[in-house]
Amino acid sequence: MNGLGIITFVSDTGWGGGYVAVCEAVVTRIRPVVKVFHISHEVPAGDIAAGALILERIAPLYPPAVHLGIVDPGVETSRRPLAVETGRGDVLVGPDNGLLVGAAMALGGLRKSWVVDPARVRAEAGLPVDRISATFQGRDVYAPTAALLATGVEAASVASSVDPAGLVRLAPPQCEITPEGAVAQVIEVDRFGNVGLALRFPDLAPRADRYSVEIVGEDLPEWTARVVNTYGELLPGELGVFCDSWGQVALALRSASAAELLAVGRGMRVRLAPIRGSLAAG
Amino acid sequence: MNGLGIITFVSDTGWGGGYVAVCEAVVTRIRPVVKVFHISHEVPAGDIAAGALILERIAPLYPPAVHLGIVDPGVETSRRPLAVETGRGDVLVGPDNGLLVGAAMALGGLRKSWVVDPARVRAEAGLPVDRISATFQGRDVYAPTAALLATGVEAASVASSVDPAGLVRLAPPQCEITPEGAVAQVIEVDRFGNVGLALRFPDLAPRADRYSVEIVGEDLPEWTARVVNTYGELLPGELGVFCDSWGQVALALRSASAAELLAVGRGMRVRLAPIRGSLAAG
Amino acid sequence: MNGLGIITFVSDTGWGGGYVAVCEAVVTRIRPVVKVFHISHEVPAGDIAAGALILERIAPLYPPAVHLGIVDPGVETSRRPLAVETGRGDVLVGPDNGLLVGAAMALGGLRKSWVVDPARVRAEAGLPVDRISATFQGRDVYAPTAALLATGVEAASVASSVDPAGLVRLAPPQCEITPEGAVAQVIEVDRFGNVGLALRFPDLAPRADRYSVEIVGEDLPEWTARVVNTYGELLPGELGVFCDSWGQVALALRSASAAELLAVGRGMRVRLAPIRGSLAAG
Repeated sequence: MNGLGIITFVSDTGWGGGYVAVCEAVVTRIRPVVKVFHISHEVPAGDIAAGALILERIAPLYPPAVHLGIVDPGVETSRRPLAVETGRGDVLVGPDNGLLVGAAMALGGLRKSWVVDPARVRAEAGLPVDRISATFQGRDVYAPTAALLATGVEAASVASSVDPAGLVRLAPPQCEITPEGAVAQVIEVDRFGNVGLALRFPDLAPRADRYSVEIVGEDLPEWTARVVNTYGELLPGELGVFCDSWGQVALALRSASAAELLAVGRGMRVRLAPIRGSLAAG
Repeated sequence: MNGLGIITFVSDTGWGGGYVAVCEAVVTRIRPVVKVFHISHEVPAGDIAAGALILERIAPLYPPAVHLGIVDPGVETSRRPLAVETGRGDVLVGPDNGLLVGAAMALGGLRKSWVVDPARVRAEAGLPVDRISATFQGRDVYAPTAALLATGVEAASVASSVDPAGLVRLAPPQCEITPEGAVAQVIEVDRFGNVGLALRFPDLAPRADRYSVEIVGEDLPEWTARVVNTYGELLPGELGVFCDSWGQVALALRSASAAELLAVGRGMRVRLAPIRGSLAAG
Repeated sequence: MNGLGIITFVSDTGWGGGYVAVCEAVVTRIRPVVKVFHISHEVPAGDIAAGALILERIAPLYPPAVHLGIVDPGVETSRRPLAVETGRGDVLVGPDNGLLVGAAMALGGLRKSWVVDPARVRAEAGLPVDRISATFQGRDVYAPTAALLATGVEAASVASSVDPAGLVRLAPPQCEITPEGAVAQVIEVDRFGNVGLALRFPDLAPRADRYSVEIVGEDLPEWTARVVNTYGELLPGELGVFCDSWGQVALALRSASAAELLAVGRGMRVRLAPIRGSLAAG
């Protein structure tokens, strides 16, 4: 671990209230030279899985960096603050609640992990050691840790090594593939209302030109979706199923919200079944 | 075209979903030295004219730069990716759907235009040439193009010259000036509810102290607006007409939303007619 | 005053409409070397007290900087543009409407104050002196002023010294402490629905384990809140009172909005009274 010089930052605090600026200010105060990139601060409040997904997808696109993730519903009062080193040489900093592990895997694997000692971090950063709020770990622990680790401070000097096997991990999103089709959880609804599923596009089988779309366990109408490459191929009002930019199966309308049409949100399950007579030739 | 070193970025993707960060990450990975400025990512989804307006207004305020614009409802599946060089020496990168042309004019005119070759861009940027998503051109084509062009790569080496006359252009917003007043489209509603019209303030004639305000084609009440210099001159509830900070005619209330009062949105047409007996002396 | 090199920026304009980018572009054009940090641009429109609070809290966390604050309902048309030097060596730039004074106090006190001369600022910055909009002082006056003052230009060369005693000051938020408890205004509702009060936690007396919570002057039910250290100690649906990360009394629910439960917003008054039999032992 050496001086990566850049921090990426994802959180659920929103930018409006100033929490993001507080963390960036703390980093800048401790290490003016560090550059902070903002992944997103609009993760749904307390939604660890949504935060983990965005971090896992986007962190690998940056050069090796310290990735600061703060999404923590705070249900546990004794959440451990972590630093995790990855195979690619990145460092992840955030709570031990599952937020970081998927990103570590996407960054070449979880190589080493430490539990951060807030007092040692603050002493090293030149901050008052006795002033640590119970409710704003981002300002008081995570941001200072990220600033130090981004500039060559050894994790061992501010944290204690722990067995990666003991870290909290999230249950993977549900995805069941059967000969009759697939049932997969909604893992993302984007600003355009596109609905991303926990199903890799190559796993959508058997291949067909059209699929029936049913929301599992809800008393909602069943829809038909046509397989397309882009939104542009769709007719107005026509539901499409396509391979999204992450290689996953997604549902979309052209210039309208598929999520609204289907009345689905993150976590709900969608059944896709090939429609008889539409099996693809190729 | 040489190394401008900075990229400005406008899009309709919102920052929340991470699309903005993806593009910034790609730029940073390819060219860590480039600085990215964010104009806005809250352009109404798919609203090319709104994106074009903000780009045209704000790009000229920056030093010469690469201006990356991504607003693309994706109705055409074969949208051409463009790079456009302007008279001032800026470069605009984005889809050939009208988004860039107005900004080019505001930046000294459209000097040269190229259609970007995604494969050559990706090869030059050191990215896998075969992995181009059909739905995320920002990540896969536009951001890498911007990174290269901001750092001295010649457009000719990653793109083919095309005749600027063939670029898609937007119809200008409607504005009709008659001896009895003017009818102009709403081109902007800002966060404060101020209503911007496609009418330059000096063109508002004949000059009067008060104008009647009517929404064309809607069964809505007619209002009276008083000409003022700033919101501060208005009484509570009084509608004002003034020269906005872009030199255009705008309607406003003091500490309230004129757009809500008038029930207007972008694209609707407003008729302004001088009120008899209120013709300005000067 | 010398070259601090960084500007922090808080406003109520939102980022979507491009006003923030305009100001950043102007700074970058005048002084490309200056780094701009964004505190928040989601201050409620025209809410000077909310802007003052966020500036007062967050500005001190940065290294000494020029702090640019633009929240101005514009009720007065003759608002004076200010530059204020603080005891710590920061400079605050913004309107003379009370926005800056609290931050100056938090930054070591109000040392000197100037009224900025727009014409001298614009001449010094190389901008057209005759083009100053009546409605966008941020672009035309405040941003250029901040750019100059962040890079070593003396305030005296673009502004006239004024007596700090004459600056507009905000009335402090209401807080009344009695032997029976406290009545304090709501000064903040954050994204999570936590309700911050104008009451320092050490001033909450007499100490008890539980307090009754009543919204003054509203016909709303009375609640009971338990004193906790973190949200995590609360049961679902249980209201908590705790010391927030700014050392103030706040009300919260676990994973839900206390502001919604209590139906309170900024400016409303909350009465906290210890519940008989729950006086704390310590």
